[in-house]
Amino acid sequence: VIMPQGSAQGRANQLATLAGLEFELFTSEEIGALLQDLNGVYGDYDSDEASIVRVLWREWEQMRRLPPDLTSRIQEAGSVGRQAWVRARETNDFALFKPHLEKMIDLQVELAEAIGSASGNRYDALLHNFEPGLTFAYIDSVFRELKPELIALTRAVAERADAVDDSVLKRHYPEVDQLRFGEEIAAALGYDFQRGRLDLSPTAFTSAFHKDDVRITTRINADNVLVALGGIIHEAGHGIHRQSLSPSLYRSGIDGTGLAIAETLSRYYENVIGLSYEFWTYFFPRAQAYFPHLADTDLITWYRAFNKAQPSLIRTDADEVTYGLHIMIRFELENELINGRMRVDELPAAWNARMETYLGIVPPTDREGVLQDTHWSQGGFGYFPDYLLGTIFASQLDEQISAQQPDIKEDWTRGDFAGTTGALVERIMQHGGKYTFGELIRRNTGEDLSAEPYLRHLKTKYGAIYEF
Amino acid sequence: VIMPQGSAQGRANQLATLAGLEFELFTSEEIGALLQDLNGVYGDYDSDEASIVRVLWREWEQMRRLPPDLTSRIQEAGSVGRQAWVRARETNDFALFKPHLEKMIDLQVELAEAIGSASGNRYDALLHNFEPGLTFAYIDSVFRELKPELIALTRAVAERADAVDDSVLKRHYPEVDQLRFGEEIAAALGYDFQRGRLDLSPTAFTSAFHKDDVRITTRINADNVLVALGGIIHEAGHGIHRQSLSPSLYRSGIDGTGLAIAETLSRYYENVIGLSYEFWTYFFPRAQAYFPHLADTDLITWYRAFNKAQPSLIRTDADEVTYGLHIMIRFELENELINGRMRVDELPAAWNARMETYLGIVPPTDREGVLQDTHWSQGGFGYFPDYLLGTIFASQLDEQISAQQPDIKEDWTRGDFAGTTGALVERIMQHGGKYTFGELIRRNTGEDLSAEPYLRHLKTKYGAIYEF
Repeated sequence: VIMPQGSAQGRANQLATLAGLEFELFTSEEIGALLQDLNGVYGDYDSDEASIVRVLWREWEQMRRLPPDLTSRIQEAGSVGRQAWVRARETNDFALFKPHLEKMIDLQVELAEAIGSASGNRYDALLHNFEPGLTFAYIDSVFRELKPELIALTRAVAERADAVDDSVLKRHYPEVDQLRFGEEIAAALGYDFQRGRLDLSPTAFTSAFHKDDVRITTRINADNVLVALGGIIHEAGHGIHRQSLSPSLYRSGIDGTGLAIAETLSRYYENVIGLSYEFWTYFFPRAQAYFPHLADTDLITWYRAFNKAQPSLIRTDADEVTYGLHIMIRFELENELINGRMRVDELPAAWNARMETYLGIVPPTDREGVLQDTHWSQGGFGYFPDYLLGTIFASQLDEQISAQQPDIKEDWTRGDFAGTTGALVERIMQHGGKYTFGELIRRNTGEDLSAEPYLRHLKTKYGAIYEF
Repeated sequence: VIMPQGSAQGRANQLATLAGLEFELFTSEEIGALLQDLNGVYGDYDSDEASIVRVLWREWEQMRRLPPDLTSRIQEAGSVGRQAWVRARETNDFALFKPHLEKMIDLQVELAEAIGSASGNRYDALLHNFEPGLTFAYIDSVFRELKPELIALTRAVAERADAVDDSVLKRHYPEVDQLRFGEEIAAALGYDFQRGRLDLSPTAFTSAFHKDDVRITTRINADNVLVALGGIIHEAGHGIHRQSLSPSLYRSGIDGTGLAIAETLSRYYENVIGLSYEFWTYFFPRAQAYFPHLADTDLITWYRAFNKAQPSLIRTDADEVTYGLHIMIRFELENELINGRMRVDELPAAWNARMETYLGIVPPTDREGVLQDTHWSQGGFGYFPDYLLGTIFASQLDEQISAQQPDIKEDWTRGDFAGTTGALVERIMQHGGKYTFGELIRRNTGEDLSAEPYLRHLKTKYGAIYEF
């Protein structure tokens, strides 16, 4: 973001050198022998040290299974593949992307077979890469329960499309004021600007150089205030997460978490907090201070506009109700592609068919369909489901925290999020990569991952907004 | 500069880890054996590869002499010592700094004795650390020739102090316009903003992450335009230098140069170009465009103001005539301190005595005297002379280039510096650390380092300005 435009190749060289060095040092026989000696000496969660050994031993053992050049072959194919994807999307020509996607799938199959999986489903190895311990069966059992309900809810809001008018979001919002307002919100949520900064970039993301240097970005659309506010609140969630690591795990090798845990936090802030009536009870008057034209609008109109739900073509623009269906399409197609049950040339039609079944709309072009995401071009198979898993767990957490700390949402109406962020630090953020996603859910709720709290949340909230 | 304020400790940890890893990998027996096998197989300058081996073998051999913990002991003492120096300077109390400086000198003596020197002068080992191959005798022979002449010139300009009025520089110059003007100048000189950027910081410096990511900073004083313009032109010189490395030396281990070579370039841009009448022939009208109040000023007044020379207390504010004497004081005192011929408690009086003899003025406080520079607090002994050595060589180069390309300064009057920067790239910048300072001088001029061109330059230029 801040780096000069012509510096990317040199930076890539440096990162490749460091990655190679890290791989070489970490996968050495010496490190393996030390980890193996220590692993199992103590109980899994007796201490931070026991967890460091357990997690790193699992990683060592897995990295040793990789053919030495596979990672760099995937990176290279991803670099070329991404360029092909950019051209294919620009020209709406899936055929340009097809051979690259086929090659990438072959590489992902090679990767999955090298890692192996207990179930025999190759896709499990790829899921595990982004969130340790996840399997197709585990995710599918929850998604399967959720899917018909989401389809029904999507139909319900689509039938009442006129019930919510979100035109107030699409007025002119000067970029600099959006940025200042976003900074105020991020700071109130608990993002520490002494150890972070907020910059502009074409897509929003978070970079954690270490726990005390965690930077977030957003894009801004002057004619749609939802883009930047949603982005900033989401990334602030990631940022607070990375800034809140326990000092005892700093530079431990398990400083970070898998993607489903990360998305639990970002979606908690973005959806549970940022789309709530309590949040806007405090922040809508602040919005009116930044944007004087909002004097003609009231809180309930603003809240309803922010929560407008409707079937749409593009995942990144999707709302809380329909988002999950976009993920399920990708999850199901990935599983079939990686297991050789679907060919790449069948993919565009399969995509469109699922869009019609799940969301009731069909992309008029591949650019608005199967070509919309960059992930597959760079080898990101097994990544998408984590977005939804985090969303689901966020609702479970919300019910749990609300039950134990019933006054906490009252705090939100006064702009006070310390209790909520404190609870999330205590329950999740401080622990780095100590617990798997499933273990974190059990420790926090006493149960396994469940779609019910998320469904209850959607039905209650959107039932009220759309009056069904 | 861009990093959040609270991120420094974490970054320091990361850099220490990388430095430790680099030291461990580079000083391994394996690398030593490879370098020793190859060293001397080819002539010194037969190829870039021969130079890489020669220079790295010298470095390996020297690094192996260091006691394993000495570097970190110096870093730690420097970190504590710098804080003590900050307090001592703030409170104008040398006694607060004294024990830390004594400890640092002990460590520098330990370092010098570990490295060793052919001459038996410990200071040579420290000089070598900042610019390979430099010795006290080499530098002293040139400084000795220069000193009485600089003292005479300083006296001459001091006696005619009223001849130059620099009040025009001390008007109000809005910071943003200074920055824009500085960017225009840096780009015209050849600094590539596609592979660099210019930011603000408390002191000006250059960071080269790699040859295609070289960033410069400046400070800006809205009431003294010389601060930012001088700083930007100096750092642009460093920046162009680092951006102009030959691709064949990129990531070779000899990508960088010693400090005297680096200062040759920065002082060439800052003094030879940036203080010249030809440079301002083009850029003074541009300055008038940025700062409309300059409509009442003419080029000759501006040029004379920019070149006002006078004895002053602070090195970093010193002009082209007096700067060298500030350096000589430090060079002489360092040599005596490191060789045990002066005690730290004698230092403030010795400083003031030399100031009086060389510059004809005495600091009223230690804060404006011996406490002004941070270098010694952090172990920077042997660093200062390189500033002046670069200045001296820059004048030798200037005579050489002007003789071979007589039209080149005419180009400057049209804002065209391509010929000059091209000559400097060809002669010096592309070569990275391939040549020692002395070798570069011989290759460029057929002679050794000489103070004569610098003295000719000063006498001609300041004789004209001050009419002596």
